[in-house]
Amino acid sequence: MKSKTMLLTGFRKPLEFREIEIPELKEGEILVKIEAAGVCGSDIHMWKGEDPRTPLPIILGHEGVGRIVEIKGDKFSVDGKKLASNDRILWNRGVTCNECYACKILKDPSLCENRKVYGINMSCDDEPYLNGCYSEYIILNPKTDIFRIDEELDPAILVTASCSGATVAHGFDILNESLIGKTVVVQGPGPLGAYSVAFAKELGATNIIVIGGSKARLELCREFGATMTLNRHDLSVEERFKEVMKITNNRGADLVVEAVGVKGVVEEGLKLVRKGGTYLAMGFAQPAGKEEVDFYLDVVNKNINIQGVWVSDTRHTKQAMDLVMKNKDKFSKLITDRFKLEEANEAVKVMDNKDALKAVFTFD
Amino acid sequence: MKSKTMLLTGFRKPLEFREIEIPELKEGEILVKIEAAGVCGSDIHMWKGEDPRTPLPIILGHEGVGRIVEIKGDKFSVDGKKLASNDRILWNRGVTCNECYACKILKDPSLCENRKVYGINMSCDDEPYLNGCYSEYIILNPKTDIFRIDEELDPAILVTASCSGATVAHGFDILNESLIGKTVVVQGPGPLGAYSVAFAKELGATNIIVIGGSKARLELCREFGATMTLNRHDLSVEERFKEVMKITNNRGADLVVEAVGVKGVVEEGLKLVRKGGTYLAMGFAQPAGKEEVDFYLDVVNKNINIQGVWVSDTRHTKQAMDLVMKNKDKFSKLITDRFKLEEANEAVKVMDNKDALKAVFTFD
Amino acid sequence: MKSKTMLLTGFRKPLEFREIEIPELKEGEILVKIEAAGVCGSDIHMWKGEDPRTPLPIILGHEGVGRIVEIKGDKFSVDGKKLASNDRILWNRGVTCNECYACKILKDPSLCENRKVYGINMSCDDEPYLNGCYSEYIILNPKTDIFRIDEELDPAILVTASCSGATVAHGFDILNESLIGKTVVVQGPGPLGAYSVAFAKELGATNIIVIGGSKARLELCREFGATMTLNRHDLSVEERFKEVMKITNNRGADLVVEAVGVKGVVEEGLKLVRKGGTYLAMGFAQPAGKEEVDFYLDVVNKNINIQGVWVSDTRHTKQAMDLVMKNKDKFSKLITDRFKLEEANEAVKVMDNKDALKAVFTFD
Amino acid sequence: MKSKTMLLTGFRKPLEFREIEIPELKEGEILVKIEAAGVCGSDIHMWKGEDPRTPLPIILGHEGVGRIVEIKGDKFSVDGKKLASNDRILWNRGVTCNECYACKILKDPSLCENRKVYGINMSCDDEPYLNGCYSEYIILNPKTDIFRIDEELDPAILVTASCSGATVAHGFDILNESLIGKTVVVQGPGPLGAYSVAFAKELGATNIIVIGGSKARLELCREFGATMTLNRHDLSVEERFKEVMKITNNRGADLVVEAVGVKGVVEEGLKLVRKGGTYLAMGFAQPAGKEEVDFYLDVVNKNINIQGVWVSDTRHTKQAMDLVMKNKDKFSKLITDRFKLEEANEAVKVMDNKDALKAVFTFD
Repeated sequence: MKSKTMLLTGFRKPLEFREIEIPELKEGEILVKIEAAGVCGSDIHMWKGEDPRTPLPIILGHEGVGRIVEIKGDKFSVDGKKLASNDRILWNRGVTCNECYACKILKDPSLCENRKVYGINMSCDDEPYLNGCYSEYIILNPKTDIFRIDEELDPAILVTASCSGATVAHGFDILNESLIGKTVVVQGPGPLGAYSVAFAKELGATNIIVIGGSKARLELCREFGATMTLNRHDLSVEERFKEVMKITNNRGADLVVEAVGVKGVVEEGLKLVRKGGTYLAMGFAQPAGKEEVDFYLDVVNKNINIQGVWVSDTRHTKQAMDLVMKNKDKFSKLITDRFKLEEANEAVKVMDNKDALKAVFTFD
Repeated sequence: MKSKTMLLTGFRKPLEFREIEIPELKEGEILVKIEAAGVCGSDIHMWKGEDPRTPLPIILGHEGVGRIVEIKGDKFSVDGKKLASNDRILWNRGVTCNECYACKILKDPSLCENRKVYGINMSCDDEPYLNGCYSEYIILNPKTDIFRIDEELDPAILVTASCSGATVAHGFDILNESLIGKTVVVQGPGPLGAYSVAFAKELGATNIIVIGGSKARLELCREFGATMTLNRHDLSVEERFKEVMKITNNRGADLVVEAVGVKGVVEEGLKLVRKGGTYLAMGFAQPAGKEEVDFYLDVVNKNINIQGVWVSDTRHTKQAMDLVMKNKDKFSKLITDRFKLEEANEAVKVMDNKDALKAVFTFD
Repeated sequence: MKSKTMLLTGFRKPLEFREIEIPELKEGEILVKIEAAGVCGSDIHMWKGEDPRTPLPIILGHEGVGRIVEIKGDKFSVDGKKLASNDRILWNRGVTCNECYACKILKDPSLCENRKVYGINMSCDDEPYLNGCYSEYIILNPKTDIFRIDEELDPAILVTASCSGATVAHGFDILNESLIGKTVVVQGPGPLGAYSVAFAKELGATNIIVIGGSKARLELCREFGATMTLNRHDLSVEERFKEVMKITNNRGADLVVEAVGVKGVVEEGLKLVRKGGTYLAMGFAQPAGKEEVDFYLDVVNKNINIQGVWVSDTRHTKQAMDLVMKNKDKFSKLITDRFKLEEANEAVKVMDNKDALKAVFTFD
Repeated sequence: MKSKTMLLTGFRKPLEFREIEIPELKEGEILVKIEAAGVCGSDIHMWKGEDPRTPLPIILGHEGVGRIVEIKGDKFSVDGKKLASNDRILWNRGVTCNECYACKILKDPSLCENRKVYGINMSCDDEPYLNGCYSEYIILNPKTDIFRIDEELDPAILVTASCSGATVAHGFDILNESLIGKTVVVQGPGPLGAYSVAFAKELGATNIIVIGGSKARLELCREFGATMTLNRHDLSVEERFKEVMKITNNRGADLVVEAVGVKGVVEEGLKLVRKGGTYLAMGFAQPAGKEEVDFYLDVVNKNINIQGVWVSDTRHTKQAMDLVMKNKDKFSKLITDRFKLEEANEAVKVMDNKDALKAVFTFD
């Protein structure tokens, strides 16, 4: 049996359609037929060669939902259910070693030194080859953490939970605090930003302010729970600052979430944090040069906390899924474009142009 | 009755000897005869006009230990003891309002919007005039938090507890974590650095590495518990990095404490933090320009935490005092120079030249 | 000028109507005309002499909203606004000393050794006499923490925020964690229970299960966000256990909130907590005998956490107010009975009989 | 090749000497020659049939240090070092599944539903048979977390790190806080108590008070850092209470550690905790009946926290090892009796009689 795939063989070159022979499963491996796969902003960076982790050739795609075709041996979901053929599943895109210092001493598997990520640092040349989601089938490693999805739903709405959703969940999980009565500013209205709004709302925030440049995206953030949006094409940095100060009685925001990752964003963001507040930086997923930070004025004197957030682990995937399941209608709106696998190059293009907020491959 | 004082009337000008009439106490005020007062690095910045908080004229000096001469009304120590004449006391240098948002909602009085600090933002023109420790007498505001010192000891060793000690305590109090088995790097071997070493040791750290430029200060840090010192005159940034990596099995330090506050220190410091580790920035007490930070590489990808630390509150003063009391011999070594009040300009000079680690005024 | 009051002069005796002369204000004091005052379950215990803190004679009533009539001196709200005549305000019912070990070292003013509470431990014999809310006027101590209410609303809906709401806020503030994806069980559907449901919902809990005996109260909890109610008249302890296990995949609840305070409740509650979960005990506001706890089985082997919650501080009052302000309609339903001050004995009676969920005095 | 073992075949019956054939290793398994194995208090409970987890027949012994004889396949230590024959190692006594809810969502493997523990719930009838440390050889499961010990030392001093040490580490890891300036009371001067004293000292506690009945054990606790010992044969419960109040300025201890597990201990312990303090219960490793707890007086009114502590995970084993390595001389004193494996019944007897604090098997 073969699997259709769209393969990245050279940076900035069109993905190539390939049919790859599905190998026989090894002990513990799971063959999954993809039902929906997401095109992540990171995929675009990888396609351009901007992500230092990318091996070639590679089947991109680290966000997927699918149905089990075959399991070699016994496998249980994280929730303790024995998995079987035809179960619909979602999995943690990162496979961790469960034995290194990060996994066992820090108990922070997102920092696992041996972390493998489907569609990101697993080449198509490495067994079992079907290592990404821009594909009809994927083969999951025995150490993959799997969630069974019993509820009937459109699988496309869950794909974002496994990457942007989980990353944002990671950030809020590190904070792990009530936001009741608090003001949250989100820099950037993309998928990370939309999830940040949704988490802030879910945790009780009183004011949720989003800064961005796309009217449509800002509008969508309002549907996710933003109480105010500031369009940077309409308002200067200073005017945005004044708006935040006005709403916070001149204190600044309790929490500012950076969901952009472009040069200069930190300088504005730190100014918006109140004394003793937190700056959650999660947009810098690729190299973006250096930020200038006035440590006296904006960090030490304000006694603030800056927390970097890198990828996520299985707990965070669950938190993102929980959030999506509670808000299916909202999250279906994140999916602005749907493609067939064979249209992958078009999907890459609309994501690159930022015409799409989120493109997803669906399969019949 | 009059109090001898040394008054700052113009930046970079010699302090002037003045005898000031001691006013009658108002309800709740406390007249204290100073026994020992510290010359802090901040005093030097203030003397130069580099600290934006400084009003003129001012009696500098925010670190003091003394004996009560008179109390107008009843006053209790933080530990619930009724205070009386002749009690030896130390007090929190910051007087907070106990009613603002920071005091009552954040419960973080170090961020109090109305915080007054003896010798820092209280002019000698404001009642009750004797508002700093470069003076024979000081008058404490009724809202001052006071500790009674019952044990017999050289009062000079306690003065640092009320500023550098309390600030470092604040940093470790925010962390509030066990350091057992952990590696701590301290940037800077001055008073903040020495206290950082002492706190790290007290909290169980296995490796305590100090980076600095003064052989004598690094040596002193060893007495405080440093297990390794790296002299920046002998080792390049790269060599220092290698030493830290070697001792941490290539992971980097769990905690890096910034106790320097000069341009460029953050860039080195962040490289030394392990993934998921913490950078505690407390040296930037005065403007020092902008630091360049590669957010992708050094913050987000490493998932680290940067915590700014600004001043301290009464809890931290207690923690610093507890530390000093357990280690009197060690902390007596921090006091490298003793002066009479009238020699204040000499004291300022040796601190400015960094000839002294810590200069203290003592009174007969 | 005189103030009408209803005075408790002997336990279990009818409250007596008295008109008390309003004394001249001292520096910092504030005269407030009450607009709404709550009858708390604790008042009933006090009336019966079951609360060891109660001095006689006393004006009961620790929950109040009112308008400023006069301020002697300057006074600012916690949010930094200068207060003036006619401002509508709500205040923290507890007045703390701002100088003891609990206030300054623990920074936990709810544990203040000198905490005075309007209507609870301040006798009507002590100056300034008008120390409780079963009164036309109250005089607030200068150290009272005050919130200004600018929005137009029915003041009655806010009275619960200052006691049951703040106490529950305190419990959730100690937890200070996201409840996304989590299961919360609430024991008891009274005001504490209803607030617990509201906080759990606000913090993202997926399942909120309430156990109680009053159909009407359980129904109200559903309006507050409960996803399941278990009536102890219909279901045995064992059946309730099974329901909770069923919904949690046999793990038990992440959090169980005790909001009852009657003998035996702890034994059931601990069984419902999952391994590693939390039991938040806040219902035991009066002596209720001893609970039997199998430490091996229910605490140690399950690695659980039990947190006692006593009263609250100003932060918690704010959190409860924020919650009420976001959900005015819901919280208006908590107020089941309204009385005139002169009808106080009737109000006590309906609360004692549990005919009312919450009785409130309103004034023209 | 055969391994000598001492086998438990019936409760309260003498252990039987057996030579068991060493099976061929499966992929990932590791054959280890034991150098030192501890006799834990739990072993005595198991021998008596008091621990519900015990399968028969069983090779007891969950604390061991040994040298690798053979590895089937590649295996790395937690610190990332490739393991090889003759490496001296210590391992986490619990083997967790790395895929259940506790392991992956709670990230608390000590609660793993599938946790297997050498010498506790792994029968000698189950492959690979050599599943306990009362044996010449043990075979480690591929999922075992292993530490390589490079330093030369007497292996006997490390055995306690893998059980009592790790359990106490777990408790202090949940607290994860500085103890600077704090007062800690430890109930029970056995191995758990001695480790508690050592951890409290390492974390900076000012006062460490131990309550116990054995003069020799209390004396040993002093060597570990206790600053006061209270012998329950000399002092009544009330007198002990007074001593703790005296030293804490009538507040009570910040932290009370329960390291006893016998009926009645909780009632005394809770009285000794200060308002807002913590009670860490870790002694109840076997059923011991019910404790009576006055929730109003001792939990809610005091706003305290009670934390149960069950077993430990790999992080905690490391923390205990780090502690022992820093304090080798002290910890060597914990080992009061050494036996040959063949003398196992004698070892069980001295532990049962409490003649020994800690008995260890050593091998030539």
